[in-house]
This record gives sequence, structure tokens and C-alpha cells, in this order.
Amino acid sequence: MSDAPSSGTIWGLGLGPGDPDLMSLRADRLLRGVRHVAYFRKPGRQGHARAIVDGILRRDVVEIAMEYPVTTEIPVADPAYNARLAPFYAECAERLAALAVGGEDVVVLCEGDPFFYGSFMHLHTRLAARVSVRVVPAITGMSAAWTATGLPVTWGDDVLTVLPATLPEAELARRIADTDALVVMKIGRNLPKLRAALSQAGKLERAWIVQYASMAVEKVARLEETGEEPVPYFSIVVVHGQGRRP
Amino acid sequence: MSDAPSSGTIWGLGLGPGDPDLMSLRADRLLRGVRHVAYFRKPGRQGHARAIVDGILRRDVVEIAMEYPVTTEIPVADPAYNARLAPFYAECAERLAALAVGGEDVVVLCEGDPFFYGSFMHLHTRLAARVSVRVVPAITGMSAAWTATGLPVTWGDDVLTVLPATLPEAELARRIADTDALVVMKIGRNLPKLRAALSQAGKLERAWIVQYASMAVEKVARLEETGEEPVPYFSIVVVHGQGRRP
Repeated sequence: MSDAPSSGTIWGLGLGPGDPDLMSLRADRLLRGVRHVAYFRKPGRQGHARAIVDGILRRDVVEIAMEYPVTTEIPVADPAYNARLAPFYAECAERLAALAVGGEDVVVLCEGDPFFYGSFMHLHTRLAARVSVRVVPAITGMSAAWTATGLPVTWGDDVLTVLPATLPEAELARRIADTDALVVMKIGRNLPKLRAALSQAGKLERAWIVQYASMAVEKVARLEETGEEPVPYFSIVVVHGQGRRP
Repeated sequence: MSDAPSSGTIWGLGLGPGDPDLMSLRADRLLRGVRHVAYFRKPGRQGHARAIVDGILRRDVVEIAMEYPVTTEIPVADPAYNARLAPFYAECAERLAALAVGGEDVVVLCEGDPFFYGSFMHLHTRLAARVSVRVVPAITGMSAAWTATGLPVTWGDDVLTVLPATLPEAELARRIADTDALVVMKIGRNLPKLRAALSQAGKLERAWIVQYASMAVEKVARLEETGEEPVPYFSIVVVHGQGRRP
């Protein structure tokens, strides 16, 4: 940014869990004012993040849809996955950096909180040394999920562990047994494995599953009472802590 | 709520980490409209939660300051602590329930997210079966803290562990060694113990400490570069995960 007194800023803008009413005042104000809005999506979809801001953006907004070249077709552990995604993120970063250097602000829409398992991090790491990047935190999907269960998640000295369900079953079971409160993310097709790990750790009967937390189609259930039907990747499992309570 | 078609609702309203601009649209709207606002505070103080909403409340707002009979004078593990707090929470719950039964809505101001180590939970557990209680999630202090460090906290399959620094040193050290990303809350006078535990786990050099996250007086530093001076109870320590990144 040596010659950049008039350079723009790239905003990693957290939108929260999905209900537009749960966006921050700052996010709302930035969205209503900004000219360039970028977001990730699967090819051919509208994109979750874009859906949250429907009706808020300027009429003359310029939209930059960044379409993933691959999502679930290649397992993430396969080197081919990173080989496809790395150049994609680099290309997206170039495009946004060029706008910022040209003096434009760009808002990148982020579901949840940008620095908490967010895709924006892959742009941030490629942009932060080159242009002005600012991040607006947001309500996480897990906050919306435990709120949806109607029960506090952590009390007193409770330990909270957040696990991706992508981990091996034995590791899931070990960590689930060793925590007071639990949140599990990235569920989708990992649900049968997660169910087995919860059962092994003796906590299946205390587990809740929340789909589409905070959205109109939100579904909250005890995991034991749900069937084998598939659940979205962004479902969240919660086991509440039982710590000190006066 | 048998005879309660006209009963009011008690709102556990998350205000977020401290910057009023990070409140949700829903929180802002509820605060501007509601007549009864309750909040916890230490005797003789304004109260952190109340300070966040300064200038937002109705002119004719009725404020209900709920003053803790005890905060740090008695160790939380001492039975005398619960013996003092339990009747206090019961009395507060009575007072709010009476308002709700009388048809009034009451907003209870909550720093951070109400169901995440929040004091509101002690009212919720006493009220939820008697009157209508609703909770609005919010941006947690930890989201504001990791955002303040300018670095993503969790990548790919990272495990995140949230620990209260009130735990014994050996347990802190064991859990710090066994996680990818780390957040530690409830710090204050536990900082020397936490520092020792981080060092034992080989992670002291990766630890950041954030004071007053998101507020005008926010302070962000590497823990190794900070001295022995006291830090606020609500300081947050962050160790960032190093997981998969294309």
C-alpha cells in the first residue's frame, strides 16, 4: 500500500448465523453503503451468504460471485482438493486486491464469524500484507444453535470443546468424553460417525442437533430422537455443560 | 403462564462484546422500544452492560439495577458464595416475573452472549417454567478478541478449546497441550497460573492477550511481551489454530 492514500479497504464482513435481524449494526450500515460486494458460492447456486443480504444492498451494487471450482466432489484430505482450491483463492484475492488498489471498498460476505472456520480466511491470508483488510466479527452459528435449544451451554468453570465432525471416530469419542460442554460443526455425512462417538462417550442422550439455526426453517431436536435421514453440512450438535450454578 | 394471554416476555438480550455498533439489529430495536430494562452490576458501579446501551434507551425507561451481594470477596468454590448468590438470583427472578405476569416486557441486558458463561442463565433457570423467556444471541467476547488479533482462530479441522482460567494449573496445561486453537476466559488474577500452564504446554510464545476487546480502550499484545501488571477478569487469551489451508 505504498502509494495508497486513496486505496480502498477489503472488509471481511460477518453476517451471523442466517437471520438478517441478527446482523450487527455495523454490518447492516456497511452493506447498505458499499458498491462492491463479493461472496463465495457453489456454481449454479445463489449462495447462502448472498441470500442473507437480499434486499439490503444498493441498487447499483456490483456483485462478485466467487464460484468454488470444487466442494464435496473431492475429499478434503486428497491433495487434489488443495491443488484446485489454492489457485482459485489466489485468483479471487487478485481480483479483490485490484479493486482495492483502484480505490474501491469491497465487502466480502461471510456466513457466521469470518475468523471462525470461515472461507474468508483464505483471502485474508493472501491479502493482509498487500491492502487494507478489516474484519467485522459476528454471531456464530454455534451461538444461534445453543440459543435454539433453549438451554445455556456453559456454566461456571465448564470447559467447552468445539470439534469438526470430520475428525476420526476414536478422536471424536475421546474428546467428547473429556469435555463439559460440546459443540460439533461440519456434520452432514459425518453424522453416523458422530452418533457412534457420542454413544461411546456416554453422551448421546444429552446431545441436541440444530439445523438451520436462527433461520425460518430452523429445526431443533434431541439427537436420539432423530432418524437416519441426511442433515445439512452446517448442522450443529450441542451437548450442554452442567457446571456450577448458584 | 396459565392465565397469561396478556403476560409480558422477559428477554435475555445479548449486547455483544462492548462496542454498541456490534449489537444486532434485533437488540437495538428491542432496546429502543422497551420500557423496563434490568441489569446486573457491582454495588456503586454503573455496570458494564448498562454502559453499552447508553443513549439508546427510551427517555421514560424504568431501570432495574440488580446489585450483586458478593463478587470477588468470597472465592467461588466457598459454599458461602452460593449461599449468598442463590437467594439474590431468586429475588431478582421474583421481581422480573412479577413484571411479566403484570403484562410488562422486560429486557435483561447481557454482556456477550447470554447462554455462554452469562449471569442471565441464573435468572433463566428460575424463570423459564413460569413466564415467557426469550434469548437473543450475540457476538461473544472471544469473537471480538480473536478478531482483534488480526488472525483467524480456527482452520480446516482445528479443534477449539475454551477454558476458564479458574481451573487448576495442571488441568489447564494438559488441555492447552491437547488442542489446536485455544481461548481462555475469566483471567484476572489467574494470569500467572495461566502463563505457567501455557509455558508447560509449549504454547506461551503463540499466546495473545486481549483486554477490552472491541472497546475504545482495547489492548492487544503477545502474552510473552506483556509484563506482570494486573489485567481485567474479562481479558481473553487466544492461541490460533494452524490447521489445513489451501
